[in-house]
This record gives sequence, structure tokens and C-alpha cells, in this order.
Amino acid sequence: MNGGLREVMHKEKKVLNRGFVELVEWMGGDEAVIRNARRCWRSASKGTESDRKLLKHLLLKGHKTPFEAMVFTFDIKCPLFVARQWFRHRMGSFNEESLRYCVAEREYFVPEGLPAKLRDEWREHQEETFTLYEQMISRHSLRREAARAILPIGIYTRFYWTVNGSSLMNFLLLRTSRQAQREIRAYARAILEIVSTVAPWSFSIFQEFVLKGGESGSHEEA
Amino acid sequence: MNGGLREVMHKEKKVLNRGFVELVEWMGGDEAVIRNARRCWRSASKGTESDRKLLKHLLLKGHKTPFEAMVFTFDIKCPLFVARQWFRHRMGSFNEESLRYCVAEREYFVPEGLPAKLRDEWREHQEETFTLYEQMISRHSLRREAARAILPIGIYTRFYWTVNGSSLMNFLLLRTSRQAQREIRAYARAILEIVSTVAPWSFSIFQEFVLKGGESGSHEEA
Amino acid sequence: MNGGLREVMHKEKKVLNRGFVELVEWMGGDEAVIRNARRCWRSASKGTESDRKLLKHLLLKGHKTPFEAMVFTFDIKCPLFVARQWFRHRMGSFNEESLRYCVAEREYFVPEGLPAKLRDEWREHQEETFTLYEQMISRHSLRREAARAILPIGIYTRFYWTVNGSSLMNFLLLRTSRQAQREIRAYARAILEIVSTVAPWSFSIFQEFVLKGGESGSHEEA
Amino acid sequence: MNGGLREVMHKEKKVLNRGFVELVEWMGGDEAVIRNARRCWRSASKGTESDRKLLKHLLLKGHKTPFEAMVFTFDIKCPLFVARQWFRHRMGSFNEESLRYCVAEREYFVPEGLPAKLRDEWREHQEETFTLYEQMISRHSLRREAARAILPIGIYTRFYWTVNGSSLMNFLLLRTSRQAQREIRAYARAILEIVSTVAPWSFSIFQEFVLKGGESGSHEEA
Repeated sequence: MNGGLREVMHKEKKVLNRGFVELVEWMGGDEAVIRNARRCWRSASKGTESDRKLLKHLLLKGHKTPFEAMVFTFDIKCPLFVARQWFRHRMGSFNEESLRYCVAEREYFVPEGLPAKLRDEWREHQEETFTLYEQMISRHSLRREAARAILPIGIYTRFYWTVNGSSLMNFLLLRTSRQAQREIRAYARAILEIVSTVAPWSFSIFQEFVLKGGESGSHEEA
Repeated sequence: MNGGLREVMHKEKKVLNRGFVELVEWMGGDEAVIRNARRCWRSASKGTESDRKLLKHLLLKGHKTPFEAMVFTFDIKCPLFVARQWFRHRMGSFNEESLRYCVAEREYFVPEGLPAKLRDEWREHQEETFTLYEQMISRHSLRREAARAILPIGIYTRFYWTVNGSSLMNFLLLRTSRQAQREIRAYARAILEIVSTVAPWSFSIFQEFVLKGGESGSHEEA
Repeated sequence: MNGGLREVMHKEKKVLNRGFVELVEWMGGDEAVIRNARRCWRSASKGTESDRKLLKHLLLKGHKTPFEAMVFTFDIKCPLFVARQWFRHRMGSFNEESLRYCVAEREYFVPEGLPAKLRDEWREHQEETFTLYEQMISRHSLRREAARAILPIGIYTRFYWTVNGSSLMNFLLLRTSRQAQREIRAYARAILEIVSTVAPWSFSIFQEFVLKGGESGSHEEA
Repeated sequence: MNGGLREVMHKEKKVLNRGFVELVEWMGGDEAVIRNARRCWRSASKGTESDRKLLKHLLLKGHKTPFEAMVFTFDIKCPLFVARQWFRHRMGSFNEESLRYCVAEREYFVPEGLPAKLRDEWREHQEETFTLYEQMISRHSLRREAARAILPIGIYTRFYWTVNGSSLMNFLLLRTSRQAQREIRAYARAILEIVSTVAPWSFSIFQEFVLKGGESGSHEEA
């Protein structure tokens, strides 16, 4: 499985016009979930088939604790309005770049499918915004943390996200849903593809029996 | 104490150029903290003096659980960059207005102390931004949730925040600190003033022995 | 509704041979949930019928955050093996009597339905256990915290539990299930009855559409 | 560092008369903490010395999030009264053997330092307790989950514990304290020794500047 790890660690999925998702570290996996679940009954594995059945049982009955034995750290770059939806998921750990200390780079979201003229207008206005932001800081000595107030919500940010398997599934359930915003759905799908290579049993059963069945929405966001 | 409640509930503190904080509901208070702490030893109160000593002991030793017996719900209006720092505090509950469904109002942060000319330039650019945003939605039928990407991080947002006394103290410790950003400090101070009338013993001891002593920073934010 | 509160506060439900559940404090209720949910769309209530529909929608879609606006504090007395299952629910606050500092009282669980002879044998052995425990402390100066190691898991303990509506529903879903242990089910049912008088809409919809539909188990316990 | 991992993974520390602690899996480490902390300022490492300074700064200022990038899973065997104190730490994941499904083994805590005569009396009574427990199940068909009510709080239990570095430090701060019960202190010290070989910088700085300085107690337990 360590071979698999190394392979995965070089994988990075591009998302939207400027973003990406990369798995930088993980522990546990299907085996850890099975090991932890079996602790409850002091039972030993009876082979592949019964292990898969156990995982399915856990997922269908909502027994989430064993999935907390697998943990992932991702490196993520996404627009700030996507990050805001992301950070609503309280069961996980975020370390984000701060515009209190760093100067923003000229990277911002442009909606797909805009007619060329509108897209130019969008870009032009954003470029002006960044110019104004930079002047406020360099010429007029405004604090960076205050100057950023003029920057767009579509600006790209970067953060590390550490999350366990159970919370990740909750995120995927809400954020791959058709009711979730198109942009965060692109990130959720990229993450689902990556973790499916790391814990293939758990996430294939999750996809087949939890994602397909449910239609959970995600209006709990801004 | 219900009289005190009613009085408090009409209190609303204005913060920054367009924001406010209002306490809309609360439960517990000093008595609940004392009651819960005494449960540990099955002990009864021995009067005012010993109750205050107990609260001081709990705060100095970091025994936080009894303070979770008091809970507050605030209605808050603040710039989005302040909300982002706020939402990093995971131990609490947020219900926020969503720009996926609502159209943004023309309310945005303007840094204090900007020279008149710069302030005008700031405002002018922001007004153009809102005009572009509105056109994208009304004329060009761009999804609201995507159009907002052009809006400034300084836009005002509104949310309810439910938080227990222990998590609130952690918020106040980090966000009244000199290392916190000036804008969120204004909100933290307003909240501290309000809760000091609701649970006066806990928060006066907290101010005197925890806030004054510490210098905790708050770089854990974006 | 304050009238309702006062009435509820005098209510205490007896559970098992020596236990009880009592609601000592609460805030929020149906109105708070509705208010918080409507914040998302900046919408006002359109009357009773649409409010009930909203609550049902939230519960069926798993939108849990608005239910965190209602919070309850219970006073509970239950056998320690029940308390252990209870404390597995991490989203809530516990303040418990400690046998490090207090001397245990002679109150212990006796299984219902034991034949008289066995019940006597059970009691007799337990009484001997308590006598040995007391001698270890008083005659042999063993630390209370170590002497308790001989006490039975069926000993009664007392604690305050502060929990929000969303976490409470999760507790009720798992602990009223037929897969939960009979003893904790008795407590869960008592609590459901009490909160149904405090937030009648939320908990009647919860009972009808969530509890009746699901069959979630609860093996996540010891 | 993988060499270190393999070495650590074979390490198992015996604690009390029958218990142990074993690290079965981990991710992150000093490097992950440093990487996550530097994300905030978009800064690169400037070498060993500045990395150690950064870790010290984070620990002294209470910036805990970066330490959530390291995660540990332990296999633990301890008396139930110790497990109860352990499970009060809500920020972590527990999977425990359940006496609803398993039959208890005759393994129980015996206080150290008891005179021989008392120790014999203690053991004799406990053996009788187990005999009664076994009869209730095998002869009288009492449910295992109810029969366990007669078992002693000093019975040994086993569980997996997954916890991140920040929550682990909070556990260690409270549970290595002189105010913590002697028995859980033995476990806390064993864990501190183990993790000090896995993330040596973080935990040596933690020991020197946080543990030595503080005197945090731990009455938040039963």
C-alpha cells in the first residue's frame, strides 16, 4: 500500500480556472476502519468478503466512528467563496494563507461560460481592483489586512485541510449533491476520485450506497 | 434576572461603519456555572464569597466545562473578512445569510482614517463593482452564487451565532488581543460589554485574571 | 411560552429502579430554529403552516445547524454503564459527580425480571461490595479514587448534560432504537417526552419522519 | 523517519498491573506542523534553528491548529475508571470493546501498595464477583449487557484512540498533572515517552515550556 501512497502523493487534480487539490499525507485506510470496527466485538477478520460486508453495514447504519481512524491532509487552492463553504465543515483542521501578512496575488475566479465581452469586462474590473489594492498598500500605507476589503470574493486562497474519513464523507455527501454550488462540487468530485484510490473499499461502497441513495442538500453555507 | 434579560435584549451595539452586535437569547449565567461546578464534589454553595472564589479558581486552572452551561445567541452584522476570522472558531453554531439565494445589498466596509480623496476613490470603485454585479445578474442572467465572486471581501454579511461561555471566552481571549485585527477587536469588545451584564461575575473575573494576564495572539485566521 | 417553561421545570421523570431525568434549563425552541433557518434566505415567516413545512424540510434534508439554536440542560441520575454510553456522544457538555472526591452511596442497578432468589443474591453481593469499599477507605485509608475500583458498574451516578437540539436528536435517534440497550432507551424516551412539550413542532416532526423511518443502531458504545 | 516509525511501532509500554499503551499508526510529525504553520505567512523554512523557534512560538502563544496536522492511533488497555477519565476528552475518536457483545475476562485493577491481607480480600471478592457474573449469563440467561452491571469499575477494557497533536497535548497537560489520578498519570507518561520519539521537537518543547510551567488540574472527570 505504500507504493500506492507514493503514487497518490504525486497526484494533483486541477480544478476551475486556477485551483487544485492535492493529497499530501494520509494514515489508516480500509484496514484501519475494519480493525477499529472489529474492536467492538473483539472479533477477527474472516476474510475479504466479510470485511466488505462489515464496511457496508457500517455505512448503511451510520456507524461513523471507525471511519475516524483514517485521516487525510490536502493542499487546496480555491476561490474564497468556495473556501467559505468549505470552512463551514467544523470537524476538520484548516491552515490558511493570511492576507493580513501576505500580499494577494492577481488570481481570481472568472465564471465559465460568460460571453467574451462580459468576460473581458469582468477581468478588466478585477485588474483595476487589484491595482487599487496594491496602491492602497504601497503608496498610501494602508494596512494589508484592511486593504484586502476591496479585493473580490473570487480571489484564490490556499489552505491545508486535515480531515478524518467520517467527516470527509459528510463533506462529500453535502458537496457532491446537485444542490451544492457547481464550483465546490468540482472540488468535491476531485477529492472523491483521489481518496477512492487510497481507501477503495470504503469509498466505492460509500459512492454506491450512500451518495447514490441520498439527495442531501447543502444550504448551510453562505 | 429576567428583568436584566429584557433590558439586555433591547441592547444593540453598533460596530464599524455599518455593523452591529445584538444578544437575542441566552441561558444559564453565573449561577449555572457554579451549580455545574459544584456537581463534581456534590457540594452546596456556601455563599457569595465562596462562589466567586470558585469561579476564579475554575478560570485560573482552565476548568472550562462548567462554563459550557451558559449559552448565548447573537445577531451579528459585520464585513465578510471579519466573518471569516469569526467562523474559524469551530465550537459554536452559525446561521448566515447566503448570497447564493439573496442579492447583496450595497453595504461595504470603508477603512477608517483614509484621506478624503482615497475614501472617495474606494467608494467609487466599490459602487462600480456593485453595478457590475447587479448587471451580471439582471441583464446577463449569471447565477447569483457565481456573480458574487466579483463582490468585495469588505461586503457586510449577517449571521446568528450560538456559543457557550467557554468557547466565547476563548474567542474573546484571541480576538480582544492586540495581535487580532482592529476590526474584529471592535466586535469582541462589544460582545464582552454585553455579556458582562448577563454573567457579571464570570466575565469580570475573566477580564481581570485571564485577559489582563495573557497576550494570546490570533494568527490562526486568514 | 414561559408558562410552559415553569410547568416543565417541575417535571422530573423517574427511570429504572433509582434514576431520573429532569430538565433544569433551556433556551430557543421551535421559534429559534425557524428564525435561524430563515436567516439563510433573508426570508420572513409566512405563517404557521409554512413554518411547519420548513421544519419538516430541514429535518428530512439533514440541515442540522438551525437546531443548534435550541439548547437544553438536564439533571440526570443513571447507572454508570448507562452514563458510559451517554458520554460517547461528544457534542455536548457533561458535569459529573466524582468518586475521586465523594464517597459512593449505596445505590446500584438491579436488573428487572430477575427471579427473587437471584435478585437477593445480586443485592447481597453488592452490599458486601459496598461494605468492602467503605472499609478500604475508612479503616485502611485507601484513596477514594482507587477504592472505587471495586464498586460495580451498575452504581448510580449524577451529571448535568447541556446539549443542543441537533445533537440531542442524534442521541435520540441512536438511543431510542431497538438496537440500543433497554436501559438507556428508557432514559431516551423520558427525554423525548420532556422536550416534546418544550419544542413541540420540532420533536413531533422528528418523531414522525425521522425516528419512525430510520432503524439506526448504536453499537458505538461499550 | 520511517526507520523511527518502524522502531516505535514495535514499542509497547506496560502500565499498571495488566494494562498497556501501544502506538499503532501515526501521520505528520514535526515537519507537518512546521509546514502548516508556515502556510499562514506563505513562508519557507529558513533552517533547523528557525523551525524550532517557530514551534516554540506556536506552543507558547497557544496557536494550536498546526499541531492538528499530526495524528496518532493508540491501542490501549486500562481499567474502566481510567477509561472514563480518558473519554471525557471529546476531541478524539474512540473504538472500544463492548460488554454488550463480549463476555468480560477476569482482569481487574488491584491497587498498588495494599497490605497482603487486604489484597487477598480484594482479589477474593473480585473473583466471586466474576463468578456471579458468569453464572448470571450462562445459567440464568441474563443479557450480557445487564449482567455486567455487577462487574467492578476496575475491570480492564481495551480501545483504539485516534487523536491529533493539539488534543493530545491538552490530554497530556491535564493528565500528567499532579492533580490527576495516579493511575491515568501512568498512562499519560507512557504516551508522552512514545510520542517524544515520533515528533521529538514538538514534544520536547511542549515538555520544557508548557508542562513544566503549568499546574493545570483535572477535576473535570468522574
